[in-house]
Amino acid sequence: MTPDEFRKAGHELIDWVADYRERVVRGEFPVMSRTPPGGLRSALPTAPPTAPESFEAIRRDLDELILPGCTHWQDPRFHGYFPSNGLNAAVLGDLVSTGLGQLGLTWQASPALSELEEVCLDWWRQMLGLSGRWSGVIQDTASTASFVALVCARERSSNHGATRAGLQGQQRPLMVYVSSQAHSSVEKAALLAGFGRENLRTIPVDENFDMRPDELAAAIVSDRAAGREPCAIVATCGTTATTAFDPLAAVAQIARAEELWLHVDAAMAGSAMILPECRELWDGVESADSLVVNPHKWLGASFDCSTYFVRDPQFLVRVMSTNPSYLQTAADGQVKNYRDWGVPLGRRMRALKLWFLIRDQGVSGLQQRLRRDLEHARWLENEVRREPHWKIVAPVRLQTLVLRHEPPGLDAAKVDSRTRQLADAVNASGRAYLTPALIEGRWALRISLGSANTEREHVEDLWRLLRELAAAL
Amino acid sequence: MTPDEFRKAGHELIDWVADYRERVVRGEFPVMSRTPPGGLRSALPTAPPTAPESFEAIRRDLDELILPGCTHWQDPRFHGYFPSNGLNAAVLGDLVSTGLGQLGLTWQASPALSELEEVCLDWWRQMLGLSGRWSGVIQDTASTASFVALVCARERSSNHGATRAGLQGQQRPLMVYVSSQAHSSVEKAALLAGFGRENLRTIPVDENFDMRPDELAAAIVSDRAAGREPCAIVATCGTTATTAFDPLAAVAQIARAEELWLHVDAAMAGSAMILPECRELWDGVESADSLVVNPHKWLGASFDCSTYFVRDPQFLVRVMSTNPSYLQTAADGQVKNYRDWGVPLGRRMRALKLWFLIRDQGVSGLQQRLRRDLEHARWLENEVRREPHWKIVAPVRLQTLVLRHEPPGLDAAKVDSRTRQLADAVNASGRAYLTPALIEGRWALRISLGSANTEREHVEDLWRLLRELAAAL
Repeated sequence: MTPDEFRKAGHELIDWVADYRERVVRGEFPVMSRTPPGGLRSALPTAPPTAPESFEAIRRDLDELILPGCTHWQDPRFHGYFPSNGLNAAVLGDLVSTGLGQLGLTWQASPALSELEEVCLDWWRQMLGLSGRWSGVIQDTASTASFVALVCARERSSNHGATRAGLQGQQRPLMVYVSSQAHSSVEKAALLAGFGRENLRTIPVDENFDMRPDELAAAIVSDRAAGREPCAIVATCGTTATTAFDPLAAVAQIARAEELWLHVDAAMAGSAMILPECRELWDGVESADSLVVNPHKWLGASFDCSTYFVRDPQFLVRVMSTNPSYLQTAADGQVKNYRDWGVPLGRRMRALKLWFLIRDQGVSGLQQRLRRDLEHARWLENEVRREPHWKIVAPVRLQTLVLRHEPPGLDAAKVDSRTRQLADAVNASGRAYLTPALIEGRWALRISLGSANTEREHVEDLWRLLRELAAAL
Repeated sequence: MTPDEFRKAGHELIDWVADYRERVVRGEFPVMSRTPPGGLRSALPTAPPTAPESFEAIRRDLDELILPGCTHWQDPRFHGYFPSNGLNAAVLGDLVSTGLGQLGLTWQASPALSELEEVCLDWWRQMLGLSGRWSGVIQDTASTASFVALVCARERSSNHGATRAGLQGQQRPLMVYVSSQAHSSVEKAALLAGFGRENLRTIPVDENFDMRPDELAAAIVSDRAAGREPCAIVATCGTTATTAFDPLAAVAQIARAEELWLHVDAAMAGSAMILPECRELWDGVESADSLVVNPHKWLGASFDCSTYFVRDPQFLVRVMSTNPSYLQTAADGQVKNYRDWGVPLGRRMRALKLWFLIRDQGVSGLQQRLRRDLEHARWLENEVRREPHWKIVAPVRLQTLVLRHEPPGLDAAKVDSRTRQLADAVNASGRAYLTPALIEGRWALRISLGSANTEREHVEDLWRLLRELAAAL
């Protein structure tokens, strides 16, 4: 593709993306893809082309093959998992990043990459209401950030055992504590870091699905008595299933008293902290050791853009750093080399999308949109509470609602089966998308509002659709 | 940013990227950024904007603040680290990915994302000349891929110890073997996975910097005799410093006989295997357990796009999988859920850039470019060998040359100091960029050819520049 062909194809694709985004807002596609398993695979050639193909051929396949295989995350009727917004400005910031093709192996390899990240992360810190003692870095996902946190915890407890025999030299097993509502990625992170499932303690939650500090304290005491070594607590601000908030102040007090690493997983709900009125939900966060918030979720930075904050960057750097001759430069010592702040060596210029987003929206614009979503959630909660036989299953803390239709005369098993049928019917309708979840062993409908283009009418449509489909079951 | 504003700004940025790429080819920028430490940071506001800013303001800052802070990886005179090509077609494929905003948490969440990846990785497998028993997945970087490989090795040796006490329950320490020339990310991966530095054996290399199989075999015997448990070998195809190739056939034979996991790090040099004439360099690769090749390097897929191949995906999935209720769908069991193939849960549609690239170039176009680069390397090698007092320090296997100017009458320390001065002078000139490396304790100039737009004239200019600057020292 010559420079001129790039220009021509690039203009066409900007229009293609713009058209696509207008089409999803108009509701032109079924939200969930109707492609059967293997549908796209069987439509594509089994071998790569020997000779170059035309841009027109690629573009035709985008329309005819790729689009039907998409579940439309940017659709205003998408209420599954979590909002993964990629706002227009963020899309363009990422285009610039890819176009520049910068790679941040070292500061010298791209000073702009490192320093824009430093500045944007400090803006973002301020937006979240965090104090100046936090330093941030962009990682890919919260899964990776939680892994990094647990490795740091492991190394602090073992006095940098990685430089000796690693976990294989550990005398008393290091223990990790999470609530029963923690995200699956936290368990995965603990397993990847070598702790072992037996050394992961699951702390019970209260009726709001928040971690019980008394149970946490008791587990720590019991482990110490049994010769184990408590190491880290992962507290969640905004659990996946119900957006529960572990009581950070109480948990942090235990972490400090017991000298445990406290990592806070605020991947989804952290963005809400740009609203001062929400910050009481994570009161105590300043006492944590590390924290992850994903601007690629509700906030609107295109995936992937997970931000990881630490209280002591020197400690992180000591655990993560490598310094082979081919990466040494004259600037070392005066600058941040972000490769020492996470797992990958190579890093793309992800700060650009955050920079574009924050400047294009302004803090006020971002706040306004999140407040709109909270308003939508309150409206829907009130509607559901007023409707006979519909039940809100968990407190509505932010923009996620967990609910169930419980027609009279049905036992729990029948209601469960109906709930899953109802979720499938919603998704099959193409008119909305949601993901069910198990809450205390019972299935519930889970609605995560906050897609960038979700307006009141879409929430009203969803509520109408739910009642209509429930009546037809 | 409204849809219309997005269109307008998008068109402007496509032209901006096209202009930028034409400007780097014309050599308008110094290759290495001349920004001093803190230069960009101090030019940016310390706080985020409250109100929205205009696109014009952002665009102006791109030109005035961001560009001067860039070291130009796409410049044809960039010969540092490795070529990190992002060809035009790949840039556009990535734009489509960001524009669509798909997220592959599950197959259902984006069938197109999963199945395009499956098909493209199988194309890529065929292009590399690998047999059909390999299955591939896209990861971010080789650092992560090597980490995943070592976790799999750990779990195979410990019979899935992660589900019990992890490495903390390991009776005999698990051992990892790498050559002294392995990339720093491999040691980092072993440390992250909890093995501990003491349990990482560094195997000596021969005069070509290739791992010595006899030394490997001896180390394994010695460890077993001492009650340790050999677990994994990481062999490198194309080391970072000199592009050395560990002898895979011999190493694989040891791995099989001793039942060790064999991971092959072909991050940089793997792309050369699209040339059948290069494949003897990794003879034996079919006996490995896992393999990483980075199309985001020489091949031309925009960063990040690291491909990880495994022989037994069911084993990988068992180690990496999580299956919480909120991720279960009706399609599970019939489809690939790539979240179970690596660390992150969220995944962007990275296959699009590979798909665009392979189709736009055709296999023949990609082969042609890589052969051009090999030809450039041979030309430069011959020139250097013919020039008095210049020395090629390591065998030139592909497109990386390691060389030194050794004027008569200087001792090793003086030559070392001159070599570093020369590298600094090249980079300060703005007329080329290269990265020095330590080879057997001595500094050398390292030239990694293969930037997409590097033609013979650029290599000639580089050689002229090196002699000119060396004469002036």
